Amino acid sequence: MKLGVCYYPEQWDESLWASDARRMAELGLSTVRIAEFAWALIEPAPGRFEWDWLDRAINTLAEAGLEVVLGTPTAAPPHWLVEQHPDVLAVDAHGRTKPFGSRRHYCFSSETFHTASARVVTAMAERYGSHPAVIAWQTDNEYGCHDTTVSYSQGALKRFRAWLAERYGSIEALNQAWGNVFWSMTYARFEDVGLPVAMPAPPNPSQLLAFQRFASDEVLRYNRMQVEILRRHAPGRPVLHNFMGFFGSFEHHKMGRDLDIASWDSYPLGHLDGMNVASEAEKLAHRRTGHPDIAAFNHDLYRGVVASGRWWVMEQQAGPVNWAPWNALPLPGMVRAWTWEAFAHGAELVSYFRWRQVPYAQEQLHSGLNTPDNLLATGGEEAAQVARELATVPVETSRPARVALVVDYAGKWALDALPNSADFDVHTLQLRWYSALRRLGLDVDVLPASADFSGYQLVAVPTLPVVSPDFVDRLQRSGAQLVFGPRSGSRTAEMHIAEGLPPGPLRALFPGLRVTAVEGLRPGIALPVSLGDTSAQVTRWRDVLDLPAGLTAEGSYSDGHAAVVQHGLARYISGWLCDAGLGAVMARAASAAGLPAQPLPEGLRLRRRGRLQFAVHYGEQAVQLPAPADARFVLGGPVLEAGGVAAWWLD
Amino acid sequence: MKLGVCYYPEQWDESLWASDARRMAELGLSTVRIAEFAWALIEPAPGRFEWDWLDRAINTLAEAGLEVVLGTPTAAPPHWLVEQHPDVLAVDAHGRTKPFGSRRHYCFSSETFHTASARVVTAMAERYGSHPAVIAWQTDNEYGCHDTTVSYSQGALKRFRAWLAERYGSIEALNQAWGNVFWSMTYARFEDVGLPVAMPAPPNPSQLLAFQRFASDEVLRYNRMQVEILRRHAPGRPVLHNFMGFFGSFEHHKMGRDLDIASWDSYPLGHLDGMNVASEAEKLAHRRTGHPDIAAFNHDLYRGVVASGRWWVMEQQAGPVNWAPWNALPLPGMVRAWTWEAFAHGAELVSYFRWRQVPYAQEQLHSGLNTPDNLLATGGEEAAQVARELATVPVETSRPARVALVVDYAGKWALDALPNSADFDVHTLQLRWYSALRRLGLDVDVLPASADFSGYQLVAVPTLPVVSPDFVDRLQRSGAQLVFGPRSGSRTAEMHIAEGLPPGPLRALFPGLRVTAVEGLRPGIALPVSLGDTSAQVTRWRDVLDLPAGLTAEGSYSDGHAAVVQHGLARYISGWLCDAGLGAVMARAASAAGLPAQPLPEGLRLRRRGRLQFAVHYGEQAVQLPAPADARFVLGGPVLEAGGVAAWWLD
Amino acid sequence: MKLGVCYYPEQWDESLWASDARRMAELGLSTVRIAEFAWALIEPAPGRFEWDWLDRAINTLAEAGLEVVLGTPTAAPPHWLVEQHPDVLAVDAHGRTKPFGSRRHYCFSSETFHTASARVVTAMAERYGSHPAVIAWQTDNEYGCHDTTVSYSQGALKRFRAWLAERYGSIEALNQAWGNVFWSMTYARFEDVGLPVAMPAPPNPSQLLAFQRFASDEVLRYNRMQVEILRRHAPGRPVLHNFMGFFGSFEHHKMGRDLDIASWDSYPLGHLDGMNVASEAEKLAHRRTGHPDIAAFNHDLYRGVVASGRWWVMEQQAGPVNWAPWNALPLPGMVRAWTWEAFAHGAELVSYFRWRQVPYAQEQLHSGLNTPDNLLATGGEEAAQVARELATVPVETSRPARVALVVDYAGKWALDALPNSADFDVHTLQLRWYSALRRLGLDVDVLPASADFSGYQLVAVPTLPVVSPDFVDRLQRSGAQLVFGPRSGSRTAEMHIAEGLPPGPLRALFPGLRVTAVEGLRPGIALPVSLGDTSAQVTRWRDVLDLPAGLTAEGSYSDGHAAVVQHGLARYISGWLCDAGLGAVMARAASAAGLPAQPLPEGLRLRRRGRLQFAVHYGEQAVQLPAPADARFVLGGPVLEAGGVAAWWLD
Ligand SMILES: [Zn+2]
Ligand SMILES: [Zn+2]
Ligand SMILES: [Zn+2]
Repeated sequence: MKLGVCYYPEQWDESLWASDARRMAELGLSTVRIAEFAWALIEPAPGRFEWDWLDRAINTLAEAGLEVVLGTPTAAPPHWLVEQHPDVLAVDAHGRTKPFGSRRHYCFSSETFHTASARVVTAMAERYGSHPAVIAWQTDNEYGCHDTTVSYSQGALKRFRAWLAERYGSIEALNQAWGNVFWSMTYARFEDVGLPVAMPAPPNPSQLLAFQRFASDEVLRYNRMQVEILRRHAPGRPVLHNFMGFFGSFEHHKMGRDLDIASWDSYPLGHLDGMNVASEAEKLAHRRTGHPDIAAFNHDLYRGVVASGRWWVMEQQAGPVNWAPWNALPLPGMVRAWTWEAFAHGAELVSYFRWRQVPYAQEQLHSGLNTPDNLLATGGEEAAQVARELATVPVETSRPARVALVVDYAGKWALDALPNSADFDVHTLQLRWYSALRRLGLDVDVLPASADFSGYQLVAVPTLPVVSPDFVDRLQRSGAQLVFGPRSGSRTAEMHIAEGLPPGPLRALFPGLRVTAVEGLRPGIALPVSLGDTSAQVTRWRDVLDLPAGLTAEGSYSDGHAAVVQHGLARYISGWLCDAGLGAVMARAASAAGLPAQPLPEGLRLRRRGRLQFAVHYGEQAVQLPAPADARFVLGGPVLEAGGVAAWWLD
Repeated sequence: MKLGVCYYPEQWDESLWASDARRMAELGLSTVRIAEFAWALIEPAPGRFEWDWLDRAINTLAEAGLEVVLGTPTAAPPHWLVEQHPDVLAVDAHGRTKPFGSRRHYCFSSETFHTASARVVTAMAERYGSHPAVIAWQTDNEYGCHDTTVSYSQGALKRFRAWLAERYGSIEALNQAWGNVFWSMTYARFEDVGLPVAMPAPPNPSQLLAFQRFASDEVLRYNRMQVEILRRHAPGRPVLHNFMGFFGSFEHHKMGRDLDIASWDSYPLGHLDGMNVASEAEKLAHRRTGHPDIAAFNHDLYRGVVASGRWWVMEQQAGPVNWAPWNALPLPGMVRAWTWEAFAHGAELVSYFRWRQVPYAQEQLHSGLNTPDNLLATGGEEAAQVARELATVPVETSRPARVALVVDYAGKWALDALPNSADFDVHTLQLRWYSALRRLGLDVDVLPASADFSGYQLVAVPTLPVVSPDFVDRLQRSGAQLVFGPRSGSRTAEMHIAEGLPPGPLRALFPGLRVTAVEGLRPGIALPVSLGDTSAQVTRWRDVLDLPAGLTAEGSYSDGHAAVVQHGLARYISGWLCDAGLGAVMARAASAAGLPAQPLPEGLRLRRRGRLQFAVHYGEQAVQLPAPADARFVLGGPVLEAGGVAAWWLD
Repeated sequence: MKLGVCYYPEQWDESLWASDARRMAELGLSTVRIAEFAWALIEPAPGRFEWDWLDRAINTLAEAGLEVVLGTPTAAPPHWLVEQHPDVLAVDAHGRTKPFGSRRHYCFSSETFHTASARVVTAMAERYGSHPAVIAWQTDNEYGCHDTTVSYSQGALKRFRAWLAERYGSIEALNQAWGNVFWSMTYARFEDVGLPVAMPAPPNPSQLLAFQRFASDEVLRYNRMQVEILRRHAPGRPVLHNFMGFFGSFEHHKMGRDLDIASWDSYPLGHLDGMNVASEAEKLAHRRTGHPDIAAFNHDLYRGVVASGRWWVMEQQAGPVNWAPWNALPLPGMVRAWTWEAFAHGAELVSYFRWRQVPYAQEQLHSGLNTPDNLLATGGEEAAQVARELATVPVETSRPARVALVVDYAGKWALDALPNSADFDVHTLQLRWYSALRRLGLDVDVLPASADFSGYQLVAVPTLPVVSPDFVDRLQRSGAQLVFGPRSGSRTAEMHIAEGLPPGPLRALFPGLRVTAVEGLRPGIALPVSLGDTSAQVTRWRDVLDLPAGLTAEGSYSDGHAAVVQHGLARYISGWLCDAGLGAVMARAASAAGLPAQPLPEGLRLRRRGRLQFAVHYGEQAVQLPAPADARFVLGGPVLEAGGVAAWWLD
């Protein structure tokens, strides 16, 4: 694994560049990402390009032996563009045009924005495509950030209608697919369809889902345009995008088909405090370590986003961030620990964000490896430590896990379109299931429903509303133990209730099973579930099951309804099960699959890379590792303090 | 009492219709409401009507022996109408036009909408007005749903000004009535007056109240237009509207004058979880039974909305709904229990919503008597049980209660316009007072201030800001015990402080009483009130009373101010009194009125219909009924489980 | 000290005026403020002035021996003006024009509003400038009320750009100052710059700060226009404005340079419940007394706002207000106590709001000295009591305190622009620091950073992000003990991180000290701080300090970082310290400064005026005063009940 850093030469006096480059190299960094917000400097006026500064910056880095990842600068369109073409600007849900002055103000459906983007990307790629120091390209920056996938512009409306015409062929088909007969919502022409926003009553969930699919396709189309230009002019250089953690607004795996490497931006403390996937208790307990599973989940997700399995951490938090409601200081050692966690999951590169804290503008409180007065910060010291340690730790090949967890973007949109329980959050559910597996010491691959599951021994599906028969086939052929969560198989692709009631196509696995009703559980309601020795609870949601003969209730609610159903290799968990309950079901499934599963001490997590077993400790109290007495350690030792890391040979 | 069901033939393949009709009849249903969202099918293009499908649907039902209630389809204006006449669309408080795509997007002040509505209603009435199977008509659907009474459109503004000119005669009179001299708000012409929205400081409460009155009048005017058409073309068929629970945005009793039957849509679980009239503890405790008093309150309200006293439950929850934040599963037995509760209150018809859960569009998670795969659901079984039981229970004539609770729509708007305590919610207060009476086993009529109170022995007025001398006269002539709540008599009709300070005209009952100040009580503040043996509390609000000699303080605050004042037949409760306190005052008043009042076991409620005493149990623990040992039961027996129902003869 | 009252003759029948005036005089009031919302009566049509009514009103008051303060009526522009010139109206953050119908709907940047304002102010000043009864003039009313400092109008945009051109000279300088190279935010012309609102990502904090400075300057410019007219036509009459408590949206001290007297509107209960500067516990505990320090803080602030030190309470709460979420009844005695608290702080005048509660329009639930039915209210009786007492208490000259607390408006905007901790509220922090000093019995002057600190023995700076070297010089020359709070010295004037890291220029006092990181602390996190005998906590925020040799850590966090640093005469508190911790640090600094400091009993506060020591008790339990046994009392005695007031001679 290599270490890298994100760098913004344009933000610093040129006199600093050479020493910055030298110090990067000395620190043990080998890769530098630059330029992804520099459009105004690269093209200060329409069609006028200024390359001198960027030539010098790249060459300065190259001369210090550093490799360069070039970002296309399209996340920050310059003022002259929005002035010339106001249609470049996106429109928010209140109908207001998003003004210039920050970033990501563009609309994915603006054709003039496509044209202008193509011009600057082409120019950059022509200039640097074959530059020996430029080893890879990043498209744009964090698609979807600041809720920017969707735009309610006239341009988006026009393209949405065309997209609908393409998808449905005829307006009659659309009316049929959406069930527009309900509430007299039928359209006579595609030009009648509007955007699903600001209606007095809820929009048709089929329309919501279609609009989200369209918006996702628009992101993919825009990215593909950039990728094609880069492929043409930057031969042999991998193209990647830097995704984010728990951004669910577009189809990551579909974009992955257009990329060579997946990368993501890992901010363990920002993601914990600033996104709502963890409980308040977890936000407090792990505010300085980060959640033990949030970064890991995303590592395991992005490893599956491109076919090759290549993935990077393009931005790694290196100290406090500036964008969560409350921004904590990392526990000393965590920048190192997060880096090793990424290594354990198979990262090729971890690139710290950013080289030096910039003393002005929006991110002035976002730390870097160096302080604004150019002294090495704690994060910088820990990066250097990792660099030294890397020299001593063999790079084993990352192998597929035995456990797969299935996620689905359209499935999230489907459930968001019909919540029925105000706190049924799909990302939160996915994280809880993933945690349950990881707390048992299991390695997990996070995969889309379209994946090949052969070789897996356990497949967990936290929720998958839209199930294809093909998916069921692949699962059955894998021979894996299967665990499904609530609302799985509940919807058709067009957002109808599944044929014959949920779990629809999953009835191939659970013959005769029907979800006859669903129940949203208000906070304060916890339904007791008896589950063998485990006394568990269901909150937020339950599917009410009509259990036919031949299926086994492994757990039940106090009103007699089945809570967990087992049949053959498959289990169905009918509710939002607590951690203890999930742990018990997963342990049972793992045992049936022949997978060793043992509950880990609080805060400890394991991950194997090849023949090396890694351990990272996110808890407060020192813990004894579950390593054999004679384990040969290549990192750390048998006892881990908070923030500690260890690795030993598996025999 | 008859049972009915809401049915949408247009949403199902026609091949199902005949078997649906047959199964309805077999289940014991006799009435079917149809068509109230079918405008796009009835009039697929301007002026072009398609009756074939509706003819067939009605005839199919009729052939199975079912009666039809026809709904006018105006709650769902079709796309061609909003395209032709964009002024049909309402405008929200943010100034945005509400787009097509759901329902209730129309503006009550749009003249083109009146014209289009009149055309479709006329055409329907002409076609089916004399159809022998069509026994009644429903206008539109749930006026006010999704906060649609008010529209901030140019059309509304124009009509508001005309309404003001009509009400006030001259702009000088308006300036005077509103006190516009304050803050230089005087107008020179009616054309100067705007809509009370988006101002930097609060609008004049007199303007707010006038605007709400205007908006209510617009709803009445629109409904009257439909009623007049129906009366012309559907001779002898009663006209009704389906009101909702705790919708306070227009004058229900005034609309009642134009109707033959009042009906309402009773969703006990949706109303509990989705509206804010119950406490969080009640939302948890009764999440599966519904609140013991919410449906009952509305039954008792709607019985008083038309002069004849005829009322129906047009839509009765038959399983989980889809529209509350958390949608619970009813406790088995509750669909039956809710039906009997309606019967006990005198309903002529309970019509379940809906025949079959529809697998697409906005309400796909709203259950029906049948599941989407067409099997009878729990609610369907319970409906059948009620149908069988009805055959054995005599239908006694419903008689007026001895206790009246007074509600007032304009009074709610007046207090909303000047809250002064952020949690003084009028509907919540009404419910708490109603509950206090019902927990004592009393039957209650919910009446407007304009009612005739002769025959009542106890009249409770939770709050009535605008009191007319005529109201006081009627109360005095009734000889009833009177209990008034805070802020009663506090305002003139134009939203000034009552002459001589509150309680204004109520000083006829409390000579010399003056409310010299009012106090909003922040959550966390509970003022102890000594009230005989009861230690009670006041939260949220108190009126500070200047108590003249001759009036008795039945209860006092710890600072010496009177909390409950008694004089002659009347009591004044000066604050938002707790349940225990309300119970004590009501018990005292009931005793003075010679009414038997006994606290009922937790969750049990009683209601008498004629000579039959009904009991429904909303609590968890089984209870012994307060029935004589030799009671002759026609339903159930002396002990009720959760969700149980009983009825016995009063001797 | 004089007592006065706010009066609105236009709101009452003229037949009441003479008796009102007579009763005011009898009550002991000497000054009456009138006319500040009467534009529509003074100028009922463009350029047509009606003086008769106002002549009569002023003369009626004068004939009763009362002095008149005339308010310019510009806070309530009449309808004809907004009709003629819609550009007069401000635009809110959602882009909506604020409509007519309440008050403060105008935009400070509207030139037509300046013209119209100048016309009416000129006309008033010409007519009454030399009227012998008119002793002072108030400009407008409560600038900033209802969040009206900022307007997003086209007029504001145009003037903002001109203001930027004036401030920065060239667009290159602006780009440089704001760091616009970040995210390609560079502008080619001043005409490119927009308003910092509705952007997808956060605006540049430098732009936010500039916009807030501009908005403040617009308020100053508007006020100066009025002041210049008044000075021209009202010779010898002091000009004042009535500021509000904790309104931070414009530079009060800069406006003070244009005024002769500072005045403010003191609503102890409204400010406690309605603004978010006190804790929930304080809101409950003091809901009827008001917070012991909120009014005092503002007294001490406004005393420093004009050079002369002259200040009034222009509006004094006299009973419940109507504008907080929950409006409590004052404890009997508090209207008197608040008046004496103002006296103790040196007020020249306390003017009650309002003479009589008006029974209509927006403020009908705002009490006055008289009830709407014209009987003296409790507040009126207490005002009369103060008037009687004033005759017996000598008016000592108010002297500067020994302790200064430094506040800064631009500093608040700077931190609001970059919160980094969602609950770092500057006003709350200032109040906590002020309270810590006052709980030790210390008198405090609240001063701007530009003040002369000579003569002070202790200067406390809760937070001051932008520190000038000149400020540090003045502090050092004063020889005072210095205490700085978190984030002090952290920013340059253009919103960059301070040179060499925070505390920037404060390193002159703390050689070598560097804030290497900052930490936002989520609610629920309290970092223990050991501070001598005191066990304290830091919540919300900490600066992480790199402590060089030579500086002393007086307190530390459990991770070893310094919490309180001491060097020479100066201390730096690195976090949001709890009350106990602040008390300990302040006591230490006071002791070092030779100031007597003793913790006062709960709820008791002291304030000295000349040789008289005043005490006001805001607690529930009676307390023994810290007065010598032989103290000579001019008011009260040695024991104070809740709401009690005492004063005794210092020897
Ligand atoms: Zn980023
Ligand atoms: Zn309905
Ligand atoms: Zn005021």
